[in-house]
Amino acid sequence: MPRMTILTEADLRKIVPLDRDAIACVESAFAALSTKAVAMPPILRLDIPEYRGEVDVKTAYVPGIEGFAIKISPGFFDNPKLGLPSVNGMMVLLSSRTGLVEALLLDNGYLTDVRTAAAGAVAAKHLARPDAAVAAVFGAGVQARLQLEALTLVRPIREARIWARDTDKARKTAADLQARLDIGVKAESDPASAVHDADVIITTTPASEPVLRAEWLEPGQHVTAMGSDAEHKNEIDPAVITRADLYVADRLSQTRLLGELHHAIEKGLVAADAHFDELGDIISGKAVRRPSPQAITLADLTGTGVQDTAIATLARDRAKCAQIGTVFES
Amino acid sequence: MPRMTILTEADLRKIVPLDRDAIACVESAFAALSTKAVAMPPILRLDIPEYRGEVDVKTAYVPGIEGFAIKISPGFFDNPKLGLPSVNGMMVLLSSRTGLVEALLLDNGYLTDVRTAAAGAVAAKHLARPDAAVAAVFGAGVQARLQLEALTLVRPIREARIWARDTDKARKTAADLQARLDIGVKAESDPASAVHDADVIITTTPASEPVLRAEWLEPGQHVTAMGSDAEHKNEIDPAVITRADLYVADRLSQTRLLGELHHAIEKGLVAADAHFDELGDIISGKAVRRPSPQAITLADLTGTGVQDTAIATLARDRAKCAQIGTVFES
Repeated sequence: MPRMTILTEADLRKIVPLDRDAIACVESAFAALSTKAVAMPPILRLDIPEYRGEVDVKTAYVPGIEGFAIKISPGFFDNPKLGLPSVNGMMVLLSSRTGLVEALLLDNGYLTDVRTAAAGAVAAKHLARPDAAVAAVFGAGVQARLQLEALTLVRPIREARIWARDTDKARKTAADLQARLDIGVKAESDPASAVHDADVIITTTPASEPVLRAEWLEPGQHVTAMGSDAEHKNEIDPAVITRADLYVADRLSQTRLLGELHHAIEKGLVAADAHFDELGDIISGKAVRRPSPQAITLADLTGTGVQDTAIATLARDRAKCAQIGTVFES
Repeated sequence: MPRMTILTEADLRKIVPLDRDAIACVESAFAALSTKAVAMPPILRLDIPEYRGEVDVKTAYVPGIEGFAIKISPGFFDNPKLGLPSVNGMMVLLSSRTGLVEALLLDNGYLTDVRTAAAGAVAAKHLARPDAAVAAVFGAGVQARLQLEALTLVRPIREARIWARDTDKARKTAADLQARLDIGVKAESDPASAVHDADVIITTTPASEPVLRAEWLEPGQHVTAMGSDAEHKNEIDPAVITRADLYVADRLSQTRLLGELHHAIEKGLVAADAHFDELGDIISGKAVRRPSPQAITLADLTGTGVQDTAIATLARDRAKCAQIGTVFES
């Protein structure tokens, strides 16, 4: 009878915090995407418009990693009316040798939060100026918090501004982050002022109309746009892509369809088959990093299956060491 | 904290036997595919050639059914060398209103076996002659057994012949089925003889070269080909499709890519965009059944996500009534 380990959200929060190890694990996954024969099929997507629901299923096999994750990510946007979170989900970790289920990671989306924030940190580590000290974050939700926290692990951030449509929420998030991260964090009601003099700008909104304008950008800034993971989402002015000196995709085949690049292609600003380097190419040294301190760089993150496989196998290994989880036979 | 029910293979074998209810449940699912705005995205497929492994993920949302399944089906063909079954897997049942995970069905492929055999019975119910009494089954594995059993639930079968490459296995399967089903079942070493005078022919092999020749077919026969669920698989001579008076797909968009139809298209015998009715169209009365007692009919089954959603929700409902399963919170 196959045996599997079931890990709950509480277990996973204990053993997989957002820390330098999580960032290193996601960084290795991106490097593998560039250097190894990774198998990462297109995302399976199911829409349930009656209930404003959608489900994404992602997977990736990375040669050399023992095990691969299949992640189920539902987003049901009427859930808050029922007192439930919009986004939840789980991962199934299978053996890459036998296909047997090794672990069920009932994370309610927690591991996705961690691997997504870790990808932001990886992008900043390889693209932002080493002395980046001021951050501007668009959005005030879970990713706004985690992205800033992850950024502080890779850059000497001492000040951050939070802009969100909901100013009260921005204020609350800023106060919480200031207490948690021990840096100066304030809410900013004007998005252009938030961007002025910032070194790193991170957009974490579900916007379907751009919230970041190209004309606000200044030399030397790095932008990570991580909110768009669907065709209709669009956080940044498509002109930012032509203005940037370096555009980097997490996965070019995805950003052409789901990322900020998609909108620049639709507007005719970029050719549909234009080549851009991927984050993994930069990590592995195949492509150049920031060309100069004055350059404007842009990372377009849509979320990839290799990140899920990386974080899920980290969770499995940590659970084994800590002897945590419930063993189930079927 | 979300609560979910975990059901093991043993639980599921108890509450979801292959019976008339399972067949009716799958029949309704096919009817829905024809009459309702079913959302059934293309199959997500991951290949791991190093270990001769493949994983399919299927899903479908059927309006009116509370809940939808996401099924993970790994097939790792070196597993028998390790003493493990090649095929296993599990299903996750989510609420179609909230996207929350309702149940984890750790069936090791059992529910797939049931819903696949049930689809064969549904095809025979709507396509075979009502007086069909003699069956020929190609293959001697789990589906050979279950397909014949399911057929006896919808047609007055009194005799069956089993042909398989491995004659010993065919003999063993024939003996087991004779004991279990209380009808005459014998192994047949010549496939043409197995087909002669049979009313229903079911192919259940993983063949990549045809095992059923067009010239063996006789008027009035019905063929169900259920072994092919991948591009390279091919059980029946493509000429069977042009010889048949009625060809029916479980899902035309899939059989064009993965089914027997795929090979007839490749050989140039059928146009790539030729229209054929689907099983659900016949069940719902949108398309005609068998045109005459002498007609040769052919059902091409590749397996669909609606069958998984149907059987998974049946399992959930039965588990609730029987108060079976382990409740887990995360």
